[in-house]
Amino acid sequence: MSAGEEASTRAAIVAVGSEMLGPFRQDTNSLWLTARLEEVGIAVVRKSVVGDDPDGIVRELEGAAAAAELVISTGGLGPTADDVTTAAAARWLGARLVRNAEFLAKMRARFESRGIRMAAVNEKQADFIEGARVLENPRGTAPGFWGSKGGRELVILPGVPSEMREIMERSVLPELAARAGGAVHRRRVLRIAGMGESAVEELVEPVYSRWKEHPVTILASPGEVQLHLCVRGLPGEAEAVLASMEEDFRSVLGERIFGEDAEDLAAAVGRMLRDGKRTLALAESCTGGMVASLVTDAPGSSDYFVGGIVSYANGAKESLLDVEPETLRNHGAVSEETAREMARGARTRLAADVGAAITGIAGPSGGTEEKPVGTVWFAVSDRDGRETAKKRAFVGDRAHVRRSASVYALELIRRHLAGWADA
Amino acid sequence: MSAGEEASTRAAIVAVGSEMLGPFRQDTNSLWLTARLEEVGIAVVRKSVVGDDPDGIVRELEGAAAAAELVISTGGLGPTADDVTTAAAARWLGARLVRNAEFLAKMRARFESRGIRMAAVNEKQADFIEGARVLENPRGTAPGFWGSKGGRELVILPGVPSEMREIMERSVLPELAARAGGAVHRRRVLRIAGMGESAVEELVEPVYSRWKEHPVTILASPGEVQLHLCVRGLPGEAEAVLASMEEDFRSVLGERIFGEDAEDLAAAVGRMLRDGKRTLALAESCTGGMVASLVTDAPGSSDYFVGGIVSYANGAKESLLDVEPETLRNHGAVSEETAREMARGARTRLAADVGAAITGIAGPSGGTEEKPVGTVWFAVSDRDGRETAKKRAFVGDRAHVRRSASVYALELIRRHLAGWADA
Repeated sequence: MSAGEEASTRAAIVAVGSEMLGPFRQDTNSLWLTARLEEVGIAVVRKSVVGDDPDGIVRELEGAAAAAELVISTGGLGPTADDVTTAAAARWLGARLVRNAEFLAKMRARFESRGIRMAAVNEKQADFIEGARVLENPRGTAPGFWGSKGGRELVILPGVPSEMREIMERSVLPELAARAGGAVHRRRVLRIAGMGESAVEELVEPVYSRWKEHPVTILASPGEVQLHLCVRGLPGEAEAVLASMEEDFRSVLGERIFGEDAEDLAAAVGRMLRDGKRTLALAESCTGGMVASLVTDAPGSSDYFVGGIVSYANGAKESLLDVEPETLRNHGAVSEETAREMARGARTRLAADVGAAITGIAGPSGGTEEKPVGTVWFAVSDRDGRETAKKRAFVGDRAHVRRSASVYALELIRRHLAGWADA
Repeated sequence: MSAGEEASTRAAIVAVGSEMLGPFRQDTNSLWLTARLEEVGIAVVRKSVVGDDPDGIVRELEGAAAAAELVISTGGLGPTADDVTTAAAARWLGARLVRNAEFLAKMRARFESRGIRMAAVNEKQADFIEGARVLENPRGTAPGFWGSKGGRELVILPGVPSEMREIMERSVLPELAARAGGAVHRRRVLRIAGMGESAVEELVEPVYSRWKEHPVTILASPGEVQLHLCVRGLPGEAEAVLASMEEDFRSVLGERIFGEDAEDLAAAVGRMLRDGKRTLALAESCTGGMVASLVTDAPGSSDYFVGGIVSYANGAKESLLDVEPETLRNHGAVSEETAREMARGARTRLAADVGAAITGIAGPSGGTEEKPVGTVWFAVSDRDGRETAKKRAFVGDRAHVRRSASVYALELIRRHLAGWADA
């Protein structure tokens, strides 16, 4: 199901840049653009990437305009010979390029104020498309443009994400929102961890079929499942429908939902720790610092995160986490007993309220018949003596196992903090 | 500069699926396809994503065929009502869809052998495009197709990555390679860290201009700069040109190049440690486990990585890394002295040959006039007494500072291991 099918205004995004046609780099601006456009009731129906080639760009703008009323291009506004979007767009619009003397003088002054002489190549960034609105770029040199042709509109933006976003926020989105005549697109993302996609689908099936007229999408990533609920309508009405839709889905998912919209699992765990005035310490083996890295991604995490120990070698488990040599000898590094001792060791060594541990086999080697690659033990140890331990068997390659295990570790901490009986 | 401009056969990739038009999910099949097509001398000049809409798909195939001789579509071959690529492609090709009784019988038998009755919706997966070659799908139900129209060719593939890749490898790439008359596309990626994009550009400028007839692309990501050298030609010749091109670039960049092609910085550091039979321990503050996570991304890293300590709180720096309380009091947590003591502490506490430390202010808060957000101190301490310490001032948001600092830490370890005088 697509969010696009019911929207009244459609957009097509054209990313310009040969570097995005190689095997290494993707266009990512379009994801941000899509999210922001949806909020003003505009659905993206087509995305494309073309190289820095004037003919190709003109052809692409033509194709995009055939698919959507609004075309947004990103990239190709820089000073080098490769940057040809403005000229190609002018050609497509049937407009002349006119060098703006006032803008050129300002550019020169800006360079001089930094003690640099402006190079001749930069001059073309003062070429304006006749008849198009100039979109000021407070974060960079090249301005954007907003032109139109035969009932189609073309918004031309730089490819540098910070510049592109600033121009959208200041000069494009407010006008699109005003035009939408009040119709809005509202989205709620419900986020679940520690469950597979099919298990989530089974739970929500009865509710899902009750809301057929509104698009619901289920997206899975390693360790996490997201439900996207989308409603389009007038302000107030759309929110009301979305709220009752959300209530329905929450009634079957309950506390399995760890957060909504942009709140990721690490942020949700951080919120619980902060609210409960508790601190966390970690002991990681196979995840190798990934859980600590996720926890400290959140600004302000020093309020509740004391630190972590990445005990890759068994010796480190003994010397830094006080895991008993006999435990390692009798049960192995990947065992419930070792996980529990690691969690206790992290908590006591780092003087935290809660300690959590991850020990497993990420692969590709190191697996045995009894403990195949993907086997991971988790434990949480609380200052009040409460402990939780779980085993999981993840499938996939090393990166997938590490990522899935990191997300599950956070989910287990969340369930432990929430006091779930069967955490 | 594009790899495409000189290639004789051009390809356009069309990804079909409304889920890739939302704000969360990207088409990633095209990256793999691009890499494999380049190897047989075919450059991708255009990529696009369209929803599961027959008219949109037909329009898209038309646009793609205007840009390239070879069009490859992925996705939309499943059994549901959303899956309309085969029908739309037949329409564009001007061909009929004919249900293949033999294939349908095989499908039914496959379902039955698993004890499942085939649903009626699945039947349409036995609809073949008249006149198109059928591309067998050993990993799934839906076959691919290879059709042509007016000198353009269309290869239709499933969207499931494993199925798409298998069909390409078995049925598409061998034929494209044979047709290429031997012309191949060779790419060498030279990777540099710890230097800005403009500094790299300045260094390579004289060499760069000597190789104008071959595309060279400079790509920057947080902490890393990549030079992509591309040569198209006959086997043997292309490699020879690429080798002398590489030699030229290496002559100006020297040891600044940490690795090539797919080898990332953590893998390069791992190789040096393994070759030198040395072990590494880490002490991280602002990077919060990210450096350890990068090091342990590499399979087999337990050969040289002992472990790490994420000392987020000052107390952890004292208790786990033996940083002197006076050092923290007199110089602060973000200082050369603290970084050096952390590196020594990690090395001795974890009994490693080399200890490395990172301490800084990732933001958004915590900055001062003297030590603004982005200030990071790095230190490496060697069992033989040799030490290296560096300060860097990174710009950007928290995620960017953390990522840049993590890459720089690995680069400093690399330079220290290589014995650079001014590491």
